Amino acid sequence: MGRGCCVGAERGAGRSRVPVLQLITLGGAAQMVTSSGTKGNVITSSLAGALAVMVAIYTAGGVSGAHLNPAFSLAMSLLGQLPWWKFPIFVAVQIFGSFIAAAAVYALYYDAIWSYSNGTLTASGPRETASIFATYPAEHLSLPNGFLDQVLGTAVLITGILAITDTRNHAVPRGLEPVAVALLVLAIEVSMGSNCGCPMNPARDLGPRLFTLLAGWGTEVFSRGSAWWWVPVVAPLVGAALGTGLYQLFVAFHHPEEEEEEDGGRARRQTKH
Amino acid sequence: MGRGCCVGAERGAGRSRVPVLQLITLGGAAQMVTSSGTKGNVITSSLAGALAVMVAIYTAGGVSGAHLNPAFSLAMSLLGQLPWWKFPIFVAVQIFGSFIAAAAVYALYYDAIWSYSNGTLTASGPRETASIFATYPAEHLSLPNGFLDQVLGTAVLITGILAITDTRNHAVPRGLEPVAVALLVLAIEVSMGSNCGCPMNPARDLGPRLFTLLAGWGTEVFSRGSAWWWVPVVAPLVGAALGTGLYQLFVAFHHPEEEEEEDGGRARRQTKH
Amino acid sequence: MGRGCCVGAERGAGRSRVPVLQLITLGGAAQMVTSSGTKGNVITSSLAGALAVMVAIYTAGGVSGAHLNPAFSLAMSLLGQLPWWKFPIFVAVQIFGSFIAAAAVYALYYDAIWSYSNGTLTASGPRETASIFATYPAEHLSLPNGFLDQVLGTAVLITGILAITDTRNHAVPRGLEPVAVALLVLAIEVSMGSNCGCPMNPARDLGPRLFTLLAGWGTEVFSRGSAWWWVPVVAPLVGAALGTGLYQLFVAFHHPEEEEEEDGGRARRQTKH
Amino acid sequence: MGRGCCVGAERGAGRSRVPVLQLITLGGAAQMVTSSGTKGNVITSSLAGALAVMVAIYTAGGVSGAHLNPAFSLAMSLLGQLPWWKFPIFVAVQIFGSFIAAAAVYALYYDAIWSYSNGTLTASGPRETASIFATYPAEHLSLPNGFLDQVLGTAVLITGILAITDTRNHAVPRGLEPVAVALLVLAIEVSMGSNCGCPMNPARDLGPRLFTLLAGWGTEVFSRGSAWWWVPVVAPLVGAALGTGLYQLFVAFHHPEEEEEEDGGRARRQTKH
Repeated sequence: MGRGCCVGAERGAGRSRVPVLQLITLGGAAQMVTSSGTKGNVITSSLAGALAVMVAIYTAGGVSGAHLNPAFSLAMSLLGQLPWWKFPIFVAVQIFGSFIAAAAVYALYYDAIWSYSNGTLTASGPRETASIFATYPAEHLSLPNGFLDQVLGTAVLITGILAITDTRNHAVPRGLEPVAVALLVLAIEVSMGSNCGCPMNPARDLGPRLFTLLAGWGTEVFSRGSAWWWVPVVAPLVGAALGTGLYQLFVAFHHPEEEEEEDGGRARRQTKH
Repeated sequence: MGRGCCVGAERGAGRSRVPVLQLITLGGAAQMVTSSGTKGNVITSSLAGALAVMVAIYTAGGVSGAHLNPAFSLAMSLLGQLPWWKFPIFVAVQIFGSFIAAAAVYALYYDAIWSYSNGTLTASGPRETASIFATYPAEHLSLPNGFLDQVLGTAVLITGILAITDTRNHAVPRGLEPVAVALLVLAIEVSMGSNCGCPMNPARDLGPRLFTLLAGWGTEVFSRGSAWWWVPVVAPLVGAALGTGLYQLFVAFHHPEEEEEEDGGRARRQTKH
Repeated sequence: MGRGCCVGAERGAGRSRVPVLQLITLGGAAQMVTSSGTKGNVITSSLAGALAVMVAIYTAGGVSGAHLNPAFSLAMSLLGQLPWWKFPIFVAVQIFGSFIAAAAVYALYYDAIWSYSNGTLTASGPRETASIFATYPAEHLSLPNGFLDQVLGTAVLITGILAITDTRNHAVPRGLEPVAVALLVLAIEVSMGSNCGCPMNPARDLGPRLFTLLAGWGTEVFSRGSAWWWVPVVAPLVGAALGTGLYQLFVAFHHPEEEEEEDGGRARRQTKH
Repeated sequence: MGRGCCVGAERGAGRSRVPVLQLITLGGAAQMVTSSGTKGNVITSSLAGALAVMVAIYTAGGVSGAHLNPAFSLAMSLLGQLPWWKFPIFVAVQIFGSFIAAAAVYALYYDAIWSYSNGTLTASGPRETASIFATYPAEHLSLPNGFLDQVLGTAVLITGILAITDTRNHAVPRGLEPVAVALLVLAIEVSMGSNCGCPMNPARDLGPRLFTLLAGWGTEVFSRGSAWWWVPVVAPLVGAALGTGLYQLFVAFHHPEEEEEEDGGRARRQTKH
């Protein structure tokens, strides 16, 4: 499955770069919300979400060691790249890392949040600030449609990451995968971002939501949107399984024959030189 | 003609990544339209169209195997890289894949579309949603000017792809062609996108238009804009032929002598090390 | 002076890609102006200007063969990479190519321009369309300040291109120079673009201005802005000479010693592997 | 510490590219401010700040020789890559270079600044122009929160640069580090830019602030924001020390074992070919 997907997997949880990922992702939302759109908008916050992944992967030292997302860790477990018994540990670390990052963003934007919210931390209304931390559905969105949104978005994300890092495929040059993954995330954010903000990561959503529950936003962070909170926790895992299966079915199973042709092509090219 | 353009061509139709391409392209339009511009604008939808190509090519495993567009397949046939008898099969698969993607976008944005359109699916008026799926001309645009727009835009697209993937030219490093092609698409979208939304792909336009016809938007999807529908079907093919011819005429025919100089240059560089 | 800067220079004028460059650059302006900002803005038009350079260089087959700009050709002549007798020929071809591209953009946006301008082609007023083709100074800008703007902007452009393509420096990987040059152009556009639109290219400005003179915009295209027209013709050449001199002075003259160190570093790295 | 971090360090101060960095960074702010947002906004000015770093590093010839920022120079000294006695010299040169660049931007935007400010250079009020040159805190921001903002932002910046240039980590391909660093800067700007404009560089702030003091903006440039001026001078240095320490602690200390695995992986890959 490409470039030594196992390398670093063991250390992935230990030196998790989840806080860096979430600091930039949530910071992008905080910048947009607390400035009332004057210093942030849909483009800057999408860029923050995409570039956060790039920065986190570079800091973690490689895509395969970058267990930033339970959905990705699940895909790795399904592909036999991560032992199943480690999966719940990784998820716990990822949720904890996201919780810590949410606290850091709260500290970073402390004055801004209190100034913007007029001194009341709420999860709804025109001055709500809970959406800086966790995602909430757009008003028009039903739970089934939101569930589909997250299944589909995460499936595209996981399929794309597998394609980008698969050396048997048309792989990105070594060392540039983080940039390609960031562009992939940006692609999903600008095409599937308006229903519910494109979480695609159970830890990214649940960790900060727990933080807002404890930090004073109240239980509304779990009840708002017909108890929306479980959708970005469950649906991305379903999407990751779907994406992994589709990639295996359509791409990876066709590789043996391709590899031969590829080698033939390379041989020819090297002869030419 | 560059990096084994034939490799993958046979499998191109079989494991078509057209649905991924169109899911992101149409999703970008849906995000802009249904959010009334609050979560999408000309930049996010242009990025969606450009990055969709990148994601689809990575998933398909290489530019040459990425038969995402009848215009590109026509260019490959004209260059002898795709047997003519396969061309109509590829086009049919591409149109079918775009139809399926349109259905997926409809499902993904089901709540959003019905909420935005106030319960009526129309192809015109302030709350029209047909332009999420297929392209329609700007009010000022006549059919001849629109035809020219699509011939010119597609000619630049095809010339650019041929230049980017041509190893005898100043080629992009292997594995980064999808990013370069995405930037090429972005260049065309921001410079030739306001007349009719830059389809440059008969399948991208016809498949989703057929979907809207069947899904309840009515026959207006074919009659609006003085029966505009055939322009994005025919003009891109003319543009592809023009682009292929121009590239052959100005660039490819001058290669033999260049290759020598290039080899000389490389030899000198290798000696230096 | 880097990667065979001479290679392709002879053919540079013959297979000039100037029309592609200007088609995208001017198209970006036309999209912004004729849609009254709804389908284009400062970002899309800056991207058009930057990506136009990328597309044109890829099509031309390499940075060194990409004589798209008299300022760059002058730098090449000053560095002994282009014989002086060829310089005026190249400039003439570049102006002619820009004239042709202006005609193509006029055709492409014919309906849009006539609709936007209410049937009168003018070089001033709220519905002026001359600025699609040539640059005009902002109202506050005096000629000396505009001259300084173009000297400084072009000096940064030429210094940057020389640095990006200089293999003795920290060069961009082969095949990615066009992307780096595009980002360089974007950097200048977003930091020095508001005074007079960042022409930095005598041919880009004079060719289309001549077209507007002949196509019905009248002599105002030369008289507007206290006869502004000569500034983007002369100042970029001064800037190119300044940039070339500064690069030689600060960077290139320090290379011999560096090359040794670099080689040492490479040797060490290769030993390590 | 990666690719010959010492190479060029000695010459770093001598051929400082600080003026290029600041010309583009401050130019981006000037374009946004003096056009009242019509030719610049949060995105263009963020791009200017990010791409300025890219252009400056390319011109300086490599990340390691690019001592553009006292925070980065401090990190290099802490890592033993820059002798301590050179540190104050580098800082002085960086402040001086920023001062010169501020003067150039004042010249470049002379007409624009005087026109926009209605003839009065002020550091506060609706037509203030001091924020083109130095940073000022948002109204809601207290000094401690601003200090935290700059510590955290610079820590992420320095950790990211160390990760991107560390060949023992998952390094960016040689020659593309400037692009990756620019994307890193952009990530921080869009996620931590609204509190105080993301200086992260004592020289970038102090040099231009001194210029505005001398050029007629008055002592308010030092007193505004409860004497804000010292925060962007001191906090980035604290952040740089923190970032360096964290990187050493979490990433660099784990390298020896990784290198082995990496080499194993490479060996395997080379065998496969």
